[in-house]
Amino acid sequence: MHILVLGAAGMVGRKFLERLAADGHLGGQAIRHATLHDVVMPAAPAGAAFSVSLTAGDLSAAGEATRLVAGRPDLIVHLAAIVSGEAEADFDKGYRINLDGTRDLFEAVRAIADGYRPRLIFTSSIAVFGAPFHERIGDEFHLTPLTSYGTQKAIGELLLADYSRRGIFDGIGIRLPTVCVRPGKPNKAASGFFSNIIREPLAGQEAVLPVSDDVRHWHASPRSAVGFLIHAATMDLAAVGPRRNLSMPGLSCTVAEQIAALERVAGKSVTARIRREPDPVIQGIVAGWPRNFDPARALALGFRAETSFEDIIRVHIDDELGGSFVA
Amino acid sequence: MHILVLGAAGMVGRKFLERLAADGHLGGQAIRHATLHDVVMPAAPAGAAFSVSLTAGDLSAAGEATRLVAGRPDLIVHLAAIVSGEAEADFDKGYRINLDGTRDLFEAVRAIADGYRPRLIFTSSIAVFGAPFHERIGDEFHLTPLTSYGTQKAIGELLLADYSRRGIFDGIGIRLPTVCVRPGKPNKAASGFFSNIIREPLAGQEAVLPVSDDVRHWHASPRSAVGFLIHAATMDLAAVGPRRNLSMPGLSCTVAEQIAALERVAGKSVTARIRREPDPVIQGIVAGWPRNFDPARALALGFRAETSFEDIIRVHIDDELGGSFVA
Repeated sequence: MHILVLGAAGMVGRKFLERLAADGHLGGQAIRHATLHDVVMPAAPAGAAFSVSLTAGDLSAAGEATRLVAGRPDLIVHLAAIVSGEAEADFDKGYRINLDGTRDLFEAVRAIADGYRPRLIFTSSIAVFGAPFHERIGDEFHLTPLTSYGTQKAIGELLLADYSRRGIFDGIGIRLPTVCVRPGKPNKAASGFFSNIIREPLAGQEAVLPVSDDVRHWHASPRSAVGFLIHAATMDLAAVGPRRNLSMPGLSCTVAEQIAALERVAGKSVTARIRREPDPVIQGIVAGWPRNFDPARALALGFRAETSFEDIIRVHIDDELGGSFVA
Repeated sequence: MHILVLGAAGMVGRKFLERLAADGHLGGQAIRHATLHDVVMPAAPAGAAFSVSLTAGDLSAAGEATRLVAGRPDLIVHLAAIVSGEAEADFDKGYRINLDGTRDLFEAVRAIADGYRPRLIFTSSIAVFGAPFHERIGDEFHLTPLTSYGTQKAIGELLLADYSRRGIFDGIGIRLPTVCVRPGKPNKAASGFFSNIIREPLAGQEAVLPVSDDVRHWHASPRSAVGFLIHAATMDLAAVGPRRNLSMPGLSCTVAEQIAALERVAGKSVTARIRREPDPVIQGIVAGWPRNFDPARALALGFRAETSFEDIIRVHIDDELGGSFVA
């Protein structure tokens, strides 16, 4: 099979490709070729037995989506997006990439119009939900985004469902929890601290906690995020029906529970590296975010995530730190 | 004040303009000018004390929306749409007018960018909801359209909320119930029979009922639909908050209850003109439609509709038949 991955240079895209390179197949089907696209040139995964084409460009540029689907990929994984903060700061760019780019991709598939009907996975976000909401957000709760990014993702979901209903492609939209522990350096994303307070102390570094310990949030590991993509790529989509967009499972816990889990896994000397420095701006942003979900449909359809924050920490230690940490 | 009405040649648009012409003001503000636009040339309402510009064109054509908002209307009433059946039959036309045209309008307002911030009313539809749903659809139920028309309306709602949140305009989206009794000739819309079985018998004509008597649906009179627009144009929008799209109130009743009301208002000789001729295709379509709502937010915000189907029939007899019918 031939796979097209858009947004292949991002963290989830890279980890998905590493997994494909390691597995060599997808649901028992051999992978023969992967086309990897991003706005910056992506890298081929190490050790892949399949051939790889690398391409960089603006998904919303004229002809770009048409070129990308011309090879008639069997599976399209659409991870490309301008992230939340940038889509909020740059109205035009956010709508151009996140809405027009997505629609261009869908239209490029439709334009082939000879019975070609790939599977298409669209990564949406819990940012489609905006406060106030129930303590646990159920599968029938309405989408009321409070950012342009969330609006663009919600529109992508609606288009995905309509194009799938029309038989243009076989689509599935997956709303990812906050990915934690995010590897790499601390960044300025408002959600960064959820990962920073685990990753940095395990690396012997100090981390700043800008919110109070009782803040609750919704997490899944990078490994689970890749697992969602693999499952979405291989599951029976007929069982999904016309409601093609699903809140993925995750783990709801408070910052206090994150820190207690870190102490159980790594000890007090590690948690002592967390410094509390309340930031009212970040506290205000985080107050509008979902805290917990009841992802009954995704669970019934076989999607799985971690069920304890210790597991999330151990995934990080195993996958990113080679099994050890700075005690 | 200056008003721009898009879709001004449609039934709701014409009745809204007749009401403005009769009132001469909107929420106490004198109307000085109205620009009326549609794909076919609209007509000026009779007896208006305000000046009227009439213009016809394709809202999604290059420069059209910019031209329409260049006069900086204080209120924009966006009723223009390709209807459900046509948007389903013609994919490109539906997306072009219902999505691109709406976005072009919103962008034309944004492009003025000098503090101009009109009120903008967007008419959405109960077609944003697709079965299965609860017996009464609440204000927090998700939008799962099963048509391209419903998808396009749902996307319009999301854009309206984001542009309003950004301060580009002060928007409100109203999801209209099925308008009943629709004046005019019987048409081939799948929903036409809800009006036909009232309007035709009152005019001495036979009407066909293609579904069983226990089919339940959600109705409001043309007079109520106009009332929703007037209220949306004059209410305090600050009270609405970021969730800018509201299911309007209506009346839920079965076909049997419609016919019983018709008998109470007009007698058995009138209801005898209804001929039962089941149509499995129409029955199938109607089975996926909403039957009842719990429009708590709209009611709390002061929107009102009829509370008995007799009232809906009397509105038709008063407003369309000059107070009498063929007994």
